Amino acid sequence: MNHTENLTRYTANFVDELVAAGLTDVVISPGSRSTPMAMTMTEHPELSQWVIIDERSAAFFALGMAKQTKRPVAIICTSGTAAANYFPAIIEAYYSRVPLIVLTTDRPHELRDVGAPQAIGQLKLYGDYTKWFHEMALPEATEDMLAYARSKASRAVHIAREGNAGPVHLNFPFREPLIPDFSTKDLWGKRGKGSFLGKMEGRRRLDPQQLNNLCEKLSDSGKGLIVCGPQPDPNLADAIAHLARQWGVPILADPLSQLRAGKHAKDHIIEGYDAILRNETIRKQLKPDFIIRFGAMPVSKAYLFFMKEHRDVQQFVVENHTGYREPARNQTAFIDADGTALCRDLAAMVATPSADETWLDTWQQMNRIAKKHLLDQHEQEKLTEGEAIRGLMTVIRDRSTIYIGNSMAVRDLDTFFMSTTASLEVLANRGANGIDGMVSSGLGAAATGTPVTLVLGDLSFFHDMNGLLAAKHYRLNITILVINNNGGGIFSFLPQVNHQKHFEALFGTPLDIDFRQVITMYGGTYHQPTNLSDLQQVLKESYRYDGLSVVEVKTDRTENRQWHHDKWQAIENELLQTRG
Amino acid sequence: MNHTENLTRYTANFVDELVAAGLTDVVISPGSRSTPMAMTMTEHPELSQWVIIDERSAAFFALGMAKQTKRPVAIICTSGTAAANYFPAIIEAYYSRVPLIVLTTDRPHELRDVGAPQAIGQLKLYGDYTKWFHEMALPEATEDMLAYARSKASRAVHIAREGNAGPVHLNFPFREPLIPDFSTKDLWGKRGKGSFLGKMEGRRRLDPQQLNNLCEKLSDSGKGLIVCGPQPDPNLADAIAHLARQWGVPILADPLSQLRAGKHAKDHIIEGYDAILRNETIRKQLKPDFIIRFGAMPVSKAYLFFMKEHRDVQQFVVENHTGYREPARNQTAFIDADGTALCRDLAAMVATPSADETWLDTWQQMNRIAKKHLLDQHEQEKLTEGEAIRGLMTVIRDRSTIYIGNSMAVRDLDTFFMSTTASLEVLANRGANGIDGMVSSGLGAAATGTPVTLVLGDLSFFHDMNGLLAAKHYRLNITILVINNNGGGIFSFLPQVNHQKHFEALFGTPLDIDFRQVITMYGGTYHQPTNLSDLQQVLKESYRYDGLSVVEVKTDRTENRQWHHDKWQAIENELLQTRG
Repeated sequence: MNHTENLTRYTANFVDELVAAGLTDVVISPGSRSTPMAMTMTEHPELSQWVIIDERSAAFFALGMAKQTKRPVAIICTSGTAAANYFPAIIEAYYSRVPLIVLTTDRPHELRDVGAPQAIGQLKLYGDYTKWFHEMALPEATEDMLAYARSKASRAVHIAREGNAGPVHLNFPFREPLIPDFSTKDLWGKRGKGSFLGKMEGRRRLDPQQLNNLCEKLSDSGKGLIVCGPQPDPNLADAIAHLARQWGVPILADPLSQLRAGKHAKDHIIEGYDAILRNETIRKQLKPDFIIRFGAMPVSKAYLFFMKEHRDVQQFVVENHTGYREPARNQTAFIDADGTALCRDLAAMVATPSADETWLDTWQQMNRIAKKHLLDQHEQEKLTEGEAIRGLMTVIRDRSTIYIGNSMAVRDLDTFFMSTTASLEVLANRGANGIDGMVSSGLGAAATGTPVTLVLGDLSFFHDMNGLLAAKHYRLNITILVINNNGGGIFSFLPQVNHQKHFEALFGTPLDIDFRQVITMYGGTYHQPTNLSDLQQVLKESYRYDGLSVVEVKTDRTENRQWHHDKWQAIENELLQTRG
Repeated sequence: MNHTENLTRYTANFVDELVAAGLTDVVISPGSRSTPMAMTMTEHPELSQWVIIDERSAAFFALGMAKQTKRPVAIICTSGTAAANYFPAIIEAYYSRVPLIVLTTDRPHELRDVGAPQAIGQLKLYGDYTKWFHEMALPEATEDMLAYARSKASRAVHIAREGNAGPVHLNFPFREPLIPDFSTKDLWGKRGKGSFLGKMEGRRRLDPQQLNNLCEKLSDSGKGLIVCGPQPDPNLADAIAHLARQWGVPILADPLSQLRAGKHAKDHIIEGYDAILRNETIRKQLKPDFIIRFGAMPVSKAYLFFMKEHRDVQQFVVENHTGYREPARNQTAFIDADGTALCRDLAAMVATPSADETWLDTWQQMNRIAKKHLLDQHEQEKLTEGEAIRGLMTVIRDRSTIYIGNSMAVRDLDTFFMSTTASLEVLANRGANGIDGMVSSGLGAAATGTPVTLVLGDLSFFHDMNGLLAAKHYRLNITILVINNNGGGIFSFLPQVNHQKHFEALFGTPLDIDFRQVITMYGGTYHQPTNLSDLQQVLKESYRYDGLSVVEVKTDRTENRQWHHDKWQAIENELLQTRG
């Protein structure tokens, strides 16, 4: 068999098997060495391609898409530093457990480490941040080697999504000429029924003995707390709500828990816990007997203090597969079991914790007080950051996704996202909490067809402005709410703010640029509302408009800090009075 | 000693020692965990700081600065994916042998691998792409630990610049609170004379016996070739020119060899070899007896063919320190010796190769023919890419730097950069040949005060548009010549062009955006000349203007390809006639 036939069949069988194993989308960054893989992907009738030039954006786009669909997405690039640009998104995918199939293409062995152009060492390029790495053999089209290509393709898809999902990395050496021949007979090879290597994956469940042991440990505990941090399972909400009612305990639900929105019962949900737990006296009063946490650690810093001040409280952390996510260093019993199944199993047990009569009431009452103040509207001339989020939540479209930025944005969402029966999914990059790649992440989610509102700060928007090109090229439907405090707003809440000498240069870091021009360049609509009703109006309009809509709210870092502190102070005062 | 004093003294001693070892500039990306290092750097009276938000741009900015100054530059960022954004520039620095001191800051050990926010594994984050990695101890201010901090700081600077220069990586765990106290008495500690660990580095020289052996091997060779690829040493030009005259041999000088411009003798320099060697018959006629190459492999693909067709030619490759840069797979004798010193040593030898009388003449005559056609001006309505470079070279400012982009830009420079007595330095990112980070690389070079003209394609300009923020913030003086063929121009020269079905989507990849708006956003001036005299005019004006000037030349990929082919064809025809 000649070179081109070897290249063509090997690549086509590999790609076809990715599809057989469930791959639907691939994000391609242009280049030369990737030609065989990129062209074959594009030729495959069952794959959707997204071509994105900046590889950093491309990888985050795939990440957002995979977060939204909960299915693996593939990314392909050429050799050299192109592949290194994937690194931030791969790290985020690794820590936030998102399946990505990273396909880098490479010079063949004889062109490595000899000063050839665009040849860098790509083996294990991403170090410990991929679940699996495999250097593929050079293309060969013997029956045996086509089976090899298929087996590696199906494994890539399975490994990426099984257990704790995450990125996998395959590196392909390709020799020139790089153009496949799509007129090759029987191009896609023999696809079996289902994938070449099938996989039936059991879910982890505790056995009756383990469930009994767990319930025994909780039986004397009047004051239980269910905590739910960031997690993507849409079925968990109902199961947790049911368990909480059975046990008579409150649920502290992070904005990324998927528990604040939806049709499930919400009377046990305490959205205001971050505001409630800001006061040390209150934190003391609310000491629980046990905590059982689902999902990752919540975003709330007040909750972290609360944990650290109650180190002797029994803590259980549920990991669907496995993990050790406990940053407070409290003694912890990890439960490796599917969270939704565990809730149902526990709710079915006869033994329940003996609920303290006032415990739930106290939390609920405090939550009402917190919410009252948080939703309290004052006549104000300027929009604050909190008001922007509050305004958004009054008009947010049902059956849509909020993709929320890190730093201040997610904290404001934590504060102002009150429980609702609307169907909202909330996504964020909380694996490594970077401000990078947010525009592309949001657009990747939007590319699945779900309406997306991306909310982020100006620095984060700036960091990934290149991502906007995809909105233009693919006419993606997205509303981007940029909260522009002209720099690093979160630092105004940290001790750095007291060091004026270096503050603006190192932490405030004002951008002083007018985003309107860049948005025009990418064919988006732009609005800059200055009061609440304008904001609500332009957001509502953006949901009717098909394409890129950017809504910029300009705020003041100092004013914002004051506004937040006033709110929290008012809540603290009333809570202390009520308890006193 | 309390926490803050430990933190302050440890960091201050480290920073002070970097300065003692020769560090002058640091590029800081804002963040929280990096606070102690960033603030201390900013406080140090002998360091210049550059604050750049996008870490990818920041690292390339440092790279450009280090390439221009040939001295190490430090980069500092916070924990998490911020550090991963450095990866592309670190890989480029590694392969192009540029000294960078990468200082990442990290959560302390107790916050690692427990799901804490913005905590990723940062040990050996850059794999094999740093010459040295060290995880620093937690801050302590005992005399012994301050000596430790100083010893590591001086080693970082030395290792980065010694031998084959490259990046080094230190990771700093910092506990909160993160604010140093600059009122600490004797803040900067005890700096000795010179750096804590001094270093005298000998240069590699062949001994008389080795020089004799080498000359013996060349003694019967009438047709010698000196080839000089990309290399940064400004002293090499004179030494090579002298040796070439002594030996009576031509010099094939890459545009990045620093040999085409300057005051040294240039009668042996053959700039047109890429055009000359495009024809197979000519390549056969010009078979040499030996090749001695300095610097990396030249950019010319014709030269690569030439080598591959003459595998039996003796080849020597000179590496200043060590290396194996020989991608053609010809048998090669590597000479590890300082190139400039070696030229001088060889020129001082009595034995020289016995020059063939017509050899140099033939090359010189062909070079004249090639140059005549390359400089031949036709009345044309539109500016082509070649004409843009040709136009630039007629007005380029003396004592300035050309920072040249990869892909088409460097190839056009190879073709149209004719030897000149002007003092020009030519820089490029030819370690890994990426199109990423070019804007920041050019701006980093400009930040040293040298006038810089950055020449690059539209995709490369797009890839690092974020880099422009530094031009605005620091009012950097740069001229950027964007050759906009609306997509990937180089693919029109590759076999991919014949596959129209997927060509535009995967390789042409038109951006279809109007850069003018983004340039306005960053406060730059913008011009779009449409003919040669306009181009020359706006370039000349840009050199008088202080700040960011962008000159965009819009070209057509198909027309461009034709124009190049016509030129090469005309040269080939005349060369063949002349020889025939």
